[in-house]
Amino acid sequence: MKKQHQIKQGAYRSDGFIAKYQKLVSGTVLPYQYDVLNDRAEGAEKSHVIQNFINAGKAVRGEDAGDGFYGMVFQDSDAAKWIEAAAYSLGNFPDPVLEKQVDDLIDIIAEAQDDDGYLDTYFTIKDKDKRWTNLLEAHELYCAGHMIEAACAYYESCGKRKLLDVMQKNTDLLYKVFIEEHHGGFPGHPEIELALMKMYRITGDEKCLSLAEYFINTRGTDTDFYKRECEARKWKVWGADPGNGEYQQSNIPLRKAERATGHAVRAVYLYTGMADLAAETGDSELFEACRRLWDSITKKQMYVTGGIGSTVHGEAFSTDYDLPPDTAYAETCASIGLMFFASRMLENEVSGEYADIMEQAFYNTVLAGMQLDGKRFFYVNPLEVVPGISGIAPTHRHDLTQRPGWYACACCPPNAARLISSFGKYAYGENGDTVFCHLFAAGTADFENGMKLVCESEYPYGFTVKYKISGSGRLAVRIPRWSPEYTLTVNGKSFAGAPENGYVYIPVSGEAEIVLTLDDTPRFIYASPKVPRLTGYTAICRGPLVFCFEGADNDGDVLSLKLDTEGGIAVKEEPELLGGTVRLEIPAVRVSQTEELYSSASPVETPCTAHAVPYYTWGNRGENQMRVWLPVKK
Amino acid sequence: MKKQHQIKQGAYRSDGFIAKYQKLVSGTVLPYQYDVLNDRAEGAEKSHVIQNFINAGKAVRGEDAGDGFYGMVFQDSDAAKWIEAAAYSLGNFPDPVLEKQVDDLIDIIAEAQDDDGYLDTYFTIKDKDKRWTNLLEAHELYCAGHMIEAACAYYESCGKRKLLDVMQKNTDLLYKVFIEEHHGGFPGHPEIELALMKMYRITGDEKCLSLAEYFINTRGTDTDFYKRECEARKWKVWGADPGNGEYQQSNIPLRKAERATGHAVRAVYLYTGMADLAAETGDSELFEACRRLWDSITKKQMYVTGGIGSTVHGEAFSTDYDLPPDTAYAETCASIGLMFFASRMLENEVSGEYADIMEQAFYNTVLAGMQLDGKRFFYVNPLEVVPGISGIAPTHRHDLTQRPGWYACACCPPNAARLISSFGKYAYGENGDTVFCHLFAAGTADFENGMKLVCESEYPYGFTVKYKISGSGRLAVRIPRWSPEYTLTVNGKSFAGAPENGYVYIPVSGEAEIVLTLDDTPRFIYASPKVPRLTGYTAICRGPLVFCFEGADNDGDVLSLKLDTEGGIAVKEEPELLGGTVRLEIPAVRVSQTEELYSSASPVETPCTAHAVPYYTWGNRGENQMRVWLPVKK
Repeated sequence: MKKQHQIKQGAYRSDGFIAKYQKLVSGTVLPYQYDVLNDRAEGAEKSHVIQNFINAGKAVRGEDAGDGFYGMVFQDSDAAKWIEAAAYSLGNFPDPVLEKQVDDLIDIIAEAQDDDGYLDTYFTIKDKDKRWTNLLEAHELYCAGHMIEAACAYYESCGKRKLLDVMQKNTDLLYKVFIEEHHGGFPGHPEIELALMKMYRITGDEKCLSLAEYFINTRGTDTDFYKRECEARKWKVWGADPGNGEYQQSNIPLRKAERATGHAVRAVYLYTGMADLAAETGDSELFEACRRLWDSITKKQMYVTGGIGSTVHGEAFSTDYDLPPDTAYAETCASIGLMFFASRMLENEVSGEYADIMEQAFYNTVLAGMQLDGKRFFYVNPLEVVPGISGIAPTHRHDLTQRPGWYACACCPPNAARLISSFGKYAYGENGDTVFCHLFAAGTADFENGMKLVCESEYPYGFTVKYKISGSGRLAVRIPRWSPEYTLTVNGKSFAGAPENGYVYIPVSGEAEIVLTLDDTPRFIYASPKVPRLTGYTAICRGPLVFCFEGADNDGDVLSLKLDTEGGIAVKEEPELLGGTVRLEIPAVRVSQTEELYSSASPVETPCTAHAVPYYTWGNRGENQMRVWLPVKK
Repeated sequence: MKKQHQIKQGAYRSDGFIAKYQKLVSGTVLPYQYDVLNDRAEGAEKSHVIQNFINAGKAVRGEDAGDGFYGMVFQDSDAAKWIEAAAYSLGNFPDPVLEKQVDDLIDIIAEAQDDDGYLDTYFTIKDKDKRWTNLLEAHELYCAGHMIEAACAYYESCGKRKLLDVMQKNTDLLYKVFIEEHHGGFPGHPEIELALMKMYRITGDEKCLSLAEYFINTRGTDTDFYKRECEARKWKVWGADPGNGEYQQSNIPLRKAERATGHAVRAVYLYTGMADLAAETGDSELFEACRRLWDSITKKQMYVTGGIGSTVHGEAFSTDYDLPPDTAYAETCASIGLMFFASRMLENEVSGEYADIMEQAFYNTVLAGMQLDGKRFFYVNPLEVVPGISGIAPTHRHDLTQRPGWYACACCPPNAARLISSFGKYAYGENGDTVFCHLFAAGTADFENGMKLVCESEYPYGFTVKYKISGSGRLAVRIPRWSPEYTLTVNGKSFAGAPENGYVYIPVSGEAEIVLTLDDTPRFIYASPKVPRLTGYTAICRGPLVFCFEGADNDGDVLSLKLDTEGGIAVKEEPELLGGTVRLEIPAVRVSQTEELYSSASPVETPCTAHAVPYYTWGNRGENQMRVWLPVKK
């Protein structure tokens, strides 16, 4: 039923912009994270992740569990996400040292698995009897899901199946508990659903498919489950309200869902699993629900940067059109999850909007989540910071002006690492004789259908994308929504085919050179007047990049700038700035006023030039003001 | 040392706009509140206020305390504020029924006073041994302060001293505990300071002055007091953090304070007491601290509506310039307290800025706090509401689109009632041979120096203020900052004297007719570019009134409006609208866009007329959008 599917890890070998990031992950992010897992990274909070597995291994063998369990209830997932990212990275850059580290860690993990297949250090060390008694809070299925993803990734990249076997034994246990013994319930933090679908595609094990179906079909159907569970247990993790079904995406059957609600990361992980299942089974009712949820997010609840989940309260979706730039939450992981969801929607339906949103999320919020040197990370991605208010005012405490180091809840850094390392899966797909180019990613790609391509491009800074392709079939190239004007040549001759649902399909037989040239003109962007604060404001995009105004480029003050949208935007190449970027110059005025807080004197507007840099580069030059949206001086 | 002092209650008899509000208080607000205190108001939450006093009386007599104490720890203050408002109202409109109700309630209160002078039903009923053990949270001194204010008001209006005697006995106890026995500490919620100064001025009792000085001088000096208190006690009310001295205005000696911080109502009550004390004792160091705090509030932390305390988190001041229109807290009581502070600053220094701010707070936030029919009240006064977001989104839950009825924490309604009923004290003052007109209040006023005046004006809707004055001395008339253009005639002849610190001083001998004509032109107002969201936005004021745009006048949608600030503003009289008002017509454009959330299509701007009504009238026509600040189309 799939309209296309992701390519395998290793089938895409990156070059250019993506290669730079993949090398940063392999050279900086993964080694640092490995040190963190082993509690030897300087200045990082204690992690204890690997020690938890070692201690759980002792408990499984009936030995004393040493210094016990330490960390969040979902601490195990840090190991899983690191293995997954490392696996993808090994697919990109073979590295025996790293591979040995992964193998050693997998050995430790395997030792921590109980005889019945159970694997979760929190419960194995602390209290076996509490297994499965707190699905709402305890993240058992979440951790299992991440370990399944790690197992699949390592098997796919390196062909080693030890962790896959461990997790097959684990999913056998899940099948026994949830399907055969009718334990009931569904995970507080979805993740297992999409992981089970990955496992199913690799192993063909129908138990995985059944489990995914079970979790998705039960959620929102058995609406009292969490309340019954809460009444039956005598313990809690945080004390989450079992009656808040809207927050937990469990108040109505998922097939009937109309709006994306609740915790944003959990929501998009869940919707990814739903779209996965729909694509695999051809379940059109489920797909229609996915469409509605997709529209709910992208048409009413998404920042222009591809950030979602606008409120810090519960890291959640708010009401429609409530998208404040300054108090945004917009967690990095939520935008990564949105990319997962988009990529699975593409398996149901090849339509340009999914890839448009993927790159909107990737080049803006996801990349902004990481410092340019790969050493510090944002969870929260505001569209406006004002030192003196951001990070300080009670409503803005979460909106930091600088990326902090490693967090106690370290979800975003390894999530960014695994996304970047597996970028090819999002960029390229295939189905039968057709090869899909969803994102513009320089490098080489090999397809199962025998076609091969080399992509040359400076994207997202260059707007010419050259494909040298060989084989027999079709190349489907996405034409981004932001570039209605483009040129496409095949072997030097203009290609006349119009896009269908955002893709141009080009027949290929033998060898061909296909050149796509997209519109590199910076664009002023306007928000719907339904977004309360943005009437009279504009943002600027060029290609997939959203730009922002930082104090560093604007005499320390961007709050008093108004943009002249009629004067054109100049693009200045800045190879030395912020890792190599462009700076935009926009005619503007600087508003000055009396020293009073309020005045009836008309503001004096002094012409000036406003300078913008890509949003993903912000916060790399010390604390300063930053705004994505600026008022328009007409 | 005072530069002038408030007139006595009864010396001003209102007419016009103020009389309408004072009649609303006497005819609607006070009777309703009396029913609430007696638990017989339909639909109101249980109050138990009077029953608490009855039960405390039983406890004092050693009887069983019936159904005990119910309500907030500061429940007694509702009775005090009602008595104070009723007392002022009796000074305006003699009413034997109301006076009997007050006398009866005072009898009940007197019965609840312990032999040693202690009066607080919470402790008397629940646990005498806990007296004075939780100054941080338990509001004992706050309740005492309000009862002192009630006693002073009733004595001043009606000449009856029973409650005054009760509270003198109470302040004797406070003197013994805090001065003689060195109990230590200061109130978590300031209020007693300003109340003691009122009592001192009426009774001349030096103990009151000493106590006020003690509380003000100790606060912020003994910075560990709340921590020691918290460690020593074994109980709590809410569990306030004893270490949060910034929030409690107790982190530095008040004389050294530079910034207004913490709970906004508490802050301005405290600063009022400080200014009181400075004026009474000529303490210039204390006055300079008051000046700095005044500037901190009015120059960096105040909404254009005179609202203060911008964040819901702790009902508090935020950081400088953090003044979001939509998530504003801006409690009604805080603006009332700002008027208190301003009026006491005027006792130290006659300067127009204090009265300017008094009327800014009064005609906008204070009046907006009350529905036009006097039956429902806002605590929270946002400058923007959007149904679907306001009151619903997690960050906007406190910003309601409609005034609710009586609250469990019923501070604002009786606070508004006592302010409105005593408006003359804020409008008129005197010192020696000089009579001060701070606010423009139609009616008559008699002064201790023998001068009398009749003021005729339709203010705030009419801008001619006619004074018929008799006596010998000077009339000091404030020229508002917003009206640099004005005409002033004395007996028909132009008066040439220039304002000194915002006041024109006119010699009077015998009878005179003085006519002031102020500028009635609506003004566009612009905020400092330091306020993050307001560059490119404008608000509109006419006289003291801030205007707002409601959906009811603007086709249901004010979010898509941009104002043309160069086309002039038309003023339309609307005697039938919203209790009689004016509506402003401003040339504008309505922005329309594609249905997309974000688009690079330039917004289509369709010329239209935007309609504004005074902010104090908003939310009286059902739920709809409302904005004070709109973007400018130049």
